[in-house]
Amino acid sequence: MRIEIICTGDEVLTGKIVNTNFTYISQKLEDHGLSVKWETTVGDDREDLLHAFQAAGGRADAVIVNGGLGPTVDDLSQEIAAQAAGVELELHQGWLARMKEMFARRGRTMSPNNVKQAMLPAGAELVDNPVGTACGFGVTIGKARFYFTPGVPRELRPMLEQEILPRLLQRGGEQAVIRLKRFHSFGLGESHVDSLLDGVATSAPGSNVKLGFRAHYPQLETKLTVRGRDEADVAAKLAPVEQEVRRRIGNFILAEDGDTLEGVVLSLLAERCASLAVAETLTGGQVAARLLALAGAETVFCRGTVASSGVKLAEALSITSVDAAGTVVDVATSVAHAARRQSGATHGLAVLVDMQADADGRGESGAISVAIATEDSLAVRSSLLAGGRDWVRSGAIEMALDCLRRLLLGLPVDEKIDFEKAM
Amino acid sequence: MRIEIICTGDEVLTGKIVNTNFTYISQKLEDHGLSVKWETTVGDDREDLLHAFQAAGGRADAVIVNGGLGPTVDDLSQEIAAQAAGVELELHQGWLARMKEMFARRGRTMSPNNVKQAMLPAGAELVDNPVGTACGFGVTIGKARFYFTPGVPRELRPMLEQEILPRLLQRGGEQAVIRLKRFHSFGLGESHVDSLLDGVATSAPGSNVKLGFRAHYPQLETKLTVRGRDEADVAAKLAPVEQEVRRRIGNFILAEDGDTLEGVVLSLLAERCASLAVAETLTGGQVAARLLALAGAETVFCRGTVASSGVKLAEALSITSVDAAGTVVDVATSVAHAARRQSGATHGLAVLVDMQADADGRGESGAISVAIATEDSLAVRSSLLAGGRDWVRSGAIEMALDCLRRLLLGLPVDEKIDFEKAM
Repeated sequence: MRIEIICTGDEVLTGKIVNTNFTYISQKLEDHGLSVKWETTVGDDREDLLHAFQAAGGRADAVIVNGGLGPTVDDLSQEIAAQAAGVELELHQGWLARMKEMFARRGRTMSPNNVKQAMLPAGAELVDNPVGTACGFGVTIGKARFYFTPGVPRELRPMLEQEILPRLLQRGGEQAVIRLKRFHSFGLGESHVDSLLDGVATSAPGSNVKLGFRAHYPQLETKLTVRGRDEADVAAKLAPVEQEVRRRIGNFILAEDGDTLEGVVLSLLAERCASLAVAETLTGGQVAARLLALAGAETVFCRGTVASSGVKLAEALSITSVDAAGTVVDVATSVAHAARRQSGATHGLAVLVDMQADADGRGESGAISVAIATEDSLAVRSSLLAGGRDWVRSGAIEMALDCLRRLLLGLPVDEKIDFEKAM
Repeated sequence: MRIEIICTGDEVLTGKIVNTNFTYISQKLEDHGLSVKWETTVGDDREDLLHAFQAAGGRADAVIVNGGLGPTVDDLSQEIAAQAAGVELELHQGWLARMKEMFARRGRTMSPNNVKQAMLPAGAELVDNPVGTACGFGVTIGKARFYFTPGVPRELRPMLEQEILPRLLQRGGEQAVIRLKRFHSFGLGESHVDSLLDGVATSAPGSNVKLGFRAHYPQLETKLTVRGRDEADVAAKLAPVEQEVRRRIGNFILAEDGDTLEGVVLSLLAERCASLAVAETLTGGQVAARLLALAGAETVFCRGTVASSGVKLAEALSITSVDAAGTVVDVATSVAHAARRQSGATHGLAVLVDMQADADGRGESGAISVAIATEDSLAVRSSLLAGGRDWVRSGAIEMALDCLRRLLLGLPVDEKIDFEKAM
């Protein structure tokens, strides 16, 4: 099945906004075993829209059009869809009633120009929008089935997932139940994980699992897509592969599916009735910010301290005993202990980074020292990361949070990662 | 002149990476008074590439193709360009020599598959890449002039700005000298600034200045594009308009052109030999992080303290005198003074945010309190921002840094902004 996407709107075409809707649609389709073959972006222009619809209708089996369903005069998708399909626009009484109901529920009066949003090509199939006033619709143009979707991301997303994807899968004759399993890891590169997982997708007989990756430094996402007759079939196919992935890259998996590293750390701390103080340098407050961005962080996060160097951090925490001859790890250790003690937290996390020019003068590296102190334990991790400030900073934030996750789970905190250089 | 863009590559088509190259190219062209009419994305597929090149060659006057110039077998742009133009591939001796030189300079041996990067359609015009091994080239397909560019952003950018743009402007018969002037502001919405600047573009006789906006909350970018015969002509046309923009939205302008709010704040502090301590709650370390991300911040930034609430922040700074009945502004004031005193900084900046449900239960707001203390002065700013945690957090970070900028420049710190609600 050849699938094309058409994105519409002057804002996208002129670069005023980044076309994240396309990325989202394409990713979602890939996750369900469908592939986009061609994408076109055109502005709010009658001639270009008609040309784009006709061209795609002549090539594709299915087309998703995004945008142009709003109430204003520059929203042209319904009008041009009708023209391309060779039919008239017709008022959809059902959707008009739904819109009136939505406005009434919000205590507002519907403006006359909203009626335009219920004008669909004659014979079009209504595609529900549970969130907004722009309904989607299906219509045939040329040899392709077109699905029109709204440009507002929070309206597009449920419509694509709940309405459009099932229709596409049915049209493609695909097995109806598909599940995507995701693993988020830190420390192993894409090609390394690929080789570690060699043969894993076919390890269970008849498992029919597709393996994929999405690298977004410092994390890597490993994706398993599985199809089956029904939920039980999918679960049975996925289980052995899932288990094998965990066995092979186990310690490096930070979180699964919708979970995040910071969310996992926060939960682990909360489960243990633990609390945290953070002290950081080059990461500049970003370790604290990752945790504090989560609702509920207040009960676990005690205090963060930021300074521009380890020595200044020690000074901020009134540490008088830092030996000038001591190593950075010594400083990190003192800082972690002091941060914990002074805030009354159960855990003190220190992340110190020193940028340095490489010996050959050609590049930069960051020496990262992480120390985690509790009342009666201490864990340290030293690492040298090649790269500029921004690259090292991102790696250091991830490493600090990952060390804490590892400690809380009883995993080794100093397992070597692919990005680091020999010390 | 009709301009089209063709983006190539499986990574973009499958949504593995967001197509920011397209956004960048389109914005740059807009900034120079050129408009993109149509965009196509195709994968690394011979048939689709050929079809895309031929279709664009039949419609457009100029086409920019991005991607597919690498050394590996899935990079097909040169090969398909030659096919579409009806010519053979030919080794470009000049570029081969340049590549060998690049490798030698880096002390590495050129791998044989790099030779492919010097194979260009016969008769193609070389377009220099000062940064990498993928040279660009110009070739005519159908009725359009095609310019091929590399997919790596740091190679694309100088090539587009230094090589492709001048060629497009010449081809379009535009006046050669174009300048883009940018103002970054915080606190006024796009339509508000648009009305404040009503008539400004035509205020000087014959000024020929185009006004545009790019909103990316919490900041707004106001852009002036001016064309002229030469640099002096452009400067003369721009000067009165620029001055008028500053007069009308003056206090709200954070920075101009390539400058940033945090960069301006850092410079202002450094010029005054001042130093800064920051204390924050919901912003979770992000005010500190914005400043510490800049090289050279070490000399100005003394210390940051993060806690989950104003009371805990006071506790962290050993403030015993916080009155339970006191207002949030009182707490912010005490915290700003203590942060300054304890760190030895000249300026203490406190940013406290309390999220609260709206009275009608339908939404959320954040009460923001900013206090800036010096040895002998105090400035405070209270504001209520409607929106969820993330929205309020972004606004609070910007407001805190902007208050500091305003204080350092002697501007009022409590000027009302469009985003805030009545207290």
